Amino acid sequence: MRNREIPKGVRDLLPDEVKIRRDLEKKAIQLFSSFGYEEVITPTVEFLEVVEASGNIREKLFLFMDREGGILSLRPEMTVSIARMAATHMRDEILPRRLYYSSNVFRHVEPHLAQYREFWQMGIELLGAPGPWADAEVISLAVKTALDFGLKNLKVSLNQIGIFNSLLDESAIEPEEKTLIRNLVEKKDLVELTRRLEKQPIDDKLKDTIAKLPTLHGGLEVLNKLAYIEKNRAAVNAVKELMEVYAALKGMGVEEQILVDMGVLRGLDYYTGVVFEGFSPELGYGLLGGGRYDNLLSQFGFACPATGFALGMDRLTLVLKNQESKQVRYMVGGPNMAANVRKADELRNAGNIVELDVLSENQAVLQEKLAGNPNYILVYIDAE
Amino acid sequence: MRNREIPKGVRDLLPDEVKIRRDLEKKAIQLFSSFGYEEVITPTVEFLEVVEASGNIREKLFLFMDREGGILSLRPEMTVSIARMAATHMRDEILPRRLYYSSNVFRHVEPHLAQYREFWQMGIELLGAPGPWADAEVISLAVKTALDFGLKNLKVSLNQIGIFNSLLDESAIEPEEKTLIRNLVEKKDLVELTRRLEKQPIDDKLKDTIAKLPTLHGGLEVLNKLAYIEKNRAAVNAVKELMEVYAALKGMGVEEQILVDMGVLRGLDYYTGVVFEGFSPELGYGLLGGGRYDNLLSQFGFACPATGFALGMDRLTLVLKNQESKQVRYMVGGPNMAANVRKADELRNAGNIVELDVLSENQAVLQEKLAGNPNYILVYIDAE
Repeated sequence: MRNREIPKGVRDLLPDEVKIRRDLEKKAIQLFSSFGYEEVITPTVEFLEVVEASGNIREKLFLFMDREGGILSLRPEMTVSIARMAATHMRDEILPRRLYYSSNVFRHVEPHLAQYREFWQMGIELLGAPGPWADAEVISLAVKTALDFGLKNLKVSLNQIGIFNSLLDESAIEPEEKTLIRNLVEKKDLVELTRRLEKQPIDDKLKDTIAKLPTLHGGLEVLNKLAYIEKNRAAVNAVKELMEVYAALKGMGVEEQILVDMGVLRGLDYYTGVVFEGFSPELGYGLLGGGRYDNLLSQFGFACPATGFALGMDRLTLVLKNQESKQVRYMVGGPNMAANVRKADELRNAGNIVELDVLSENQAVLQEKLAGNPNYILVYIDAE
Repeated sequence: MRNREIPKGVRDLLPDEVKIRRDLEKKAIQLFSSFGYEEVITPTVEFLEVVEASGNIREKLFLFMDREGGILSLRPEMTVSIARMAATHMRDEILPRRLYYSSNVFRHVEPHLAQYREFWQMGIELLGAPGPWADAEVISLAVKTALDFGLKNLKVSLNQIGIFNSLLDESAIEPEEKTLIRNLVEKKDLVELTRRLEKQPIDDKLKDTIAKLPTLHGGLEVLNKLAYIEKNRAAVNAVKELMEVYAALKGMGVEEQILVDMGVLRGLDYYTGVVFEGFSPELGYGLLGGGRYDNLLSQFGFACPATGFALGMDRLTLVLKNQESKQVRYMVGGPNMAANVRKADELRNAGNIVELDVLSENQAVLQEKLAGNPNYILVYIDAE
């Protein structure tokens, strides 16, 4: 018999799972389209040289040789491919141009819950639009898509990468050291971060400010706690831009989901402005993320500002499934069916899922039936 | 500047092209679903050992190493992956089980018109159903899908692989020689086929029968021209099965598109019964193909008959685009508008696309306008 194993970190999706996918894809496409975004498809394989525009992710790539002698990579994400495509095919088009995708991408990671080596992303790229309203459109659309999916408890952490970058640029820290410090800020590893900063030949106030970044999260007021930066013009401008995007998001009615978080720096090298990540308390990983990348397209010869996001669709699917299965359901029973119906309707009108005990079972039978399922709340109305 | 090339044989799809794709996908999904087929998704990468169940296609594979030490392949087609999946996850389900997919697959071929290294297939697999009606469902659904897409001039060539196989099995021909002969029959290379058969130590009548296979195509009556086979029980049974499937296809109302063609043998090793390929005169390559593969699932430990097809969606898209742009349009003009309208309606009722010259231009102007466009037929009605 032939081995029927599949490679580590990939999956078969059976019909029930694919149905959920198609439903989510349809909702996202409807929403993206209504904002004027149009779908593009890029090749699953790209040259390594193209993919490396993402920055330092070589160790996560699936690499192999072309028979023509080039080094190919399974694409690890979509933004770089769309930047390359736009620089090739869309140089003469009217801007801004709005694009979306629904694609599988590949990274050589250790597989975990909802973390696969082949995974599914949907996302948008808004090309050729500078300014806070473009960022706010993108961020608000990410929020709206997740809400459209039915996601509860979404929080989006917002930052401006220029704050961190300009603080480090004014110091004499080596580039590799800078990358290490960025990772520690992202991981919120305060102990190691402080230890490393101690060794750097920089002003104490600057050290304190950088060391505090991971702790600065909450409403817009956390920006006031950024001591020291008033002398750094670039950092001040970055803070100002962050406040403008926040104001625009308020204008778009999604400020309820937005937090400021100075610890959000995003792993990829190409971000230049506002960056963001979306979370739900149920899952340790980010569910969505994105930001502004004004210099990426010019790497491919097309100077064009841009901003966008990607949704981690596998993770979203998992959280949505958990939230759904955890959703409380009422079972309403009792000898007086008219009373049961009234109660059931009352609960439904309050937004609940309510099942009527159409079999008119007695209380003991109903309790036993529901004993194994903690999601059910039994409402049994005794006869008066 | 970063190189913005893409690997040989792959493509970027811009919004207009993706829209056409999504439309076709939607039509196919609607039709497949209405027959009870459900969508599945398998990993883009499989172990080489799994992929090799397709037979001798190693030279067309994109291979690379897993970091765990396995040899991986980008999937070259979907049937083997679905057989592996079904053997893993669907052993205890009620049969028949109907599955479909919409997936990209990868083969290292020389790129040509509508022949890419990454290409898109949609298809179905009907698992757990022996017999002519199962094959007829699959073949008729392939025809109906292509017709739903709006494809004109589709012809589906039908064969039963057992006719060729049992003729060769009764001879003492070496396996490698058999593969060569199969390829020559498929290519309809009569000269080389006759030359090779001459050298074989087999009965002259058998040689004649095999040499004639590529020329046997047309209605069911070509089966009568199969001399010699009456002594080969397996070949006789294969012919009988082919006739039963043909009769079932007639019962399903698609016999108009069906031809018998003894030269259709399909490249993949796993076919065991009826095989078929769909063509349109506009393109040299097949647009769709499939057949019965009763032994493939048992290679993965699940003895289960099966039959299915795959549509070459990129090729279909190309032919559909050509057919659309080549479609004749009428332009009806002349001084008497009432007469023009009558003529236009008459032509429309006969199934034509007809434009009325609402600007009432004279004949010379209209002729000049349409001079550059060979798709237009000008109907100019002079006043009486």
